Amino acid sequence: MVPKVPKGCVIGVDLGGTKVLAGAVDERLGVHHRALRSSRGEDTAEVLSIIEGAVREASEAVDGVVEAVGVGVPSTIDALRGVSIYSTHLPLAGVPVATLLAERLGLPVFMDNDANLALLAEHRAGAAEGAGNALMLTLGTGIGGGILVDGRIYRGSQGAAAELGHMVVDQDGPPCQGNCPNRGCLEVMASGSALVREATALAGERPRSALGRALASGRGITGPLVTELAHDGDEAAREVLGLIGRRLGVGISSLVNVFDPDVVLIGGGVVAAGELLFEPARDEMRARALPPGRDHVRILPTRFGDESGMLGAAVLARDAIDARAAA
Amino acid sequence: MVPKVPKGCVIGVDLGGTKVLAGAVDERLGVHHRALRSSRGEDTAEVLSIIEGAVREASEAVDGVVEAVGVGVPSTIDALRGVSIYSTHLPLAGVPVATLLAERLGLPVFMDNDANLALLAEHRAGAAEGAGNALMLTLGTGIGGGILVDGRIYRGSQGAAAELGHMVVDQDGPPCQGNCPNRGCLEVMASGSALVREATALAGERPRSALGRALASGRGITGPLVTELAHDGDEAAREVLGLIGRRLGVGISSLVNVFDPDVVLIGGGVVAAGELLFEPARDEMRARALPPGRDHVRILPTRFGDESGMLGAAVLARDAIDARAAA
Repeated sequence: MVPKVPKGCVIGVDLGGTKVLAGAVDERLGVHHRALRSSRGEDTAEVLSIIEGAVREASEAVDGVVEAVGVGVPSTIDALRGVSIYSTHLPLAGVPVATLLAERLGLPVFMDNDANLALLAEHRAGAAEGAGNALMLTLGTGIGGGILVDGRIYRGSQGAAAELGHMVVDQDGPPCQGNCPNRGCLEVMASGSALVREATALAGERPRSALGRALASGRGITGPLVTELAHDGDEAAREVLGLIGRRLGVGISSLVNVFDPDVVLIGGGVVAAGELLFEPARDEMRARALPPGRDHVRILPTRFGDESGMLGAAVLARDAIDARAAA
Repeated sequence: MVPKVPKGCVIGVDLGGTKVLAGAVDERLGVHHRALRSSRGEDTAEVLSIIEGAVREASEAVDGVVEAVGVGVPSTIDALRGVSIYSTHLPLAGVPVATLLAERLGLPVFMDNDANLALLAEHRAGAAEGAGNALMLTLGTGIGGGILVDGRIYRGSQGAAAELGHMVVDQDGPPCQGNCPNRGCLEVMASGSALVREATALAGERPRSALGRALASGRGITGPLVTELAHDGDEAAREVLGLIGRRLGVGISSLVNVFDPDVVLIGGGVVAAGELLFEPARDEMRARALPPGRDHVRILPTRFGDESGMLGAAVLARDAIDARAAA
């Protein structure tokens, strides 16, 4: 029998570009049930229904009251009103996500940008614990960003800050993804999507590599496949990870010069590539950034892997109900 | 007779890439004497002597006690110890500028990054007054940067933050200037030096333009000359300002996506170009940055022109002695 969750859990939801993860999370950030959906829906109603279903599944594993729900969305948001303002990947522009979900679920719902939340979890109990100034890059369909200034999440003048994936690294580069009107953003150069695009291109050029054979066999080229082949020693797959890592390093060199941070965290599935990704990123940053920032900063994977966002959503919900109880 | 300055002035010093400005500044940010040096010296001792001479000249205009000196330097610094850590343009690496000047002058000396100080002055009484989150780009030999977060200057983990001129906008661009090891930084693309470089190149290609005739006549191409010819209607000069303005706009689009600021200030001599520079910068930013940041931010010239840095150095010195008096 699956052990029941202690009373007083919250549900953390991470809404990704292509999937939804909801977790029942206790006060010590222990995860007692995970509900994963591999689609995030094509229109607003479908997105909301998929979130609702995942939250209900996670809630049913809880032997007691679910107190609140936190939701991380890959979008610029109005954190005070719980409205998604602009999403480069999801049909959520102008949608009051928190209010609509609260009506469906009968629970308090709190919302923030997904990468802000990932950074919140990592600062609370992960790889940025103890850092004063920290940055987060989450690599997935796009690149999300989070900024911690003097121990607090920086949101900007309207809650729309920290779109670190939309820093330009190549002003004449390819058009950016989704709804972003820019060119050569870090996101289009170094996200999980960019990894797949570059790997597919190189697979065509190197038909005898493991990557090339995978393409020819009709296996879809995915981030996890590239990482697996690279770990198995395929030079083409390693080359692609090196290219993406160096581009990440270019973006990180800008961030180091701008923020002089203690730590830059990299999260998302591609982190499984380990040093094949991190070493070129660190080398490129060190070759480009100014002292003393370049000598001080650490570039680290998230502790919670691709669950940082879900855990951070739980931290958001927990902090919010604790603040209400204290008020 | 020149009116004497009221008692209790401080001296603000702005150490630029190629010049030094010291001003005797009263409590209301009134400037009573300016001492300008058109060279900043070739080695550390010479730099310090030139600063000392300018401070002494400004001090002699003061009918009463000079209470303190503030110095802005174009360098990453350790603000607590008053040490210049790394300067891309000046022979000051590791030099305890504040201590050495204090010994020479017999006055308390306070130091900070020049663009931080320019932003401090503009926030106190200039174009960023009332802003919560603001950024400053000072265009001169290089590009200095300042960051205001929630009304306070953001310095980063070691006082080295806000090198906004060393954000990459073209990862395969030209090698950056001075001691910067990077490529395609905003500084090498859009500083005053870049303006002169691009103008000289275009003058060669367009011998019949006013810009081309100026080059052929042996007149050195300078930023003020380009601005003057552009205001007089020379298409080549306008084209160069448009190019520099658009590149600035690329960098500002990154800054808007990262910071969601209320205002981005642009300072330095090139601001005299006015809308010939600002219009292309704003157009490029609006075409590239994400909502809602792009619709909220204002891109403005500094109120104090190229005196923001000197005035900010005076604000720094004034605040420091006021804090000492209150302690």
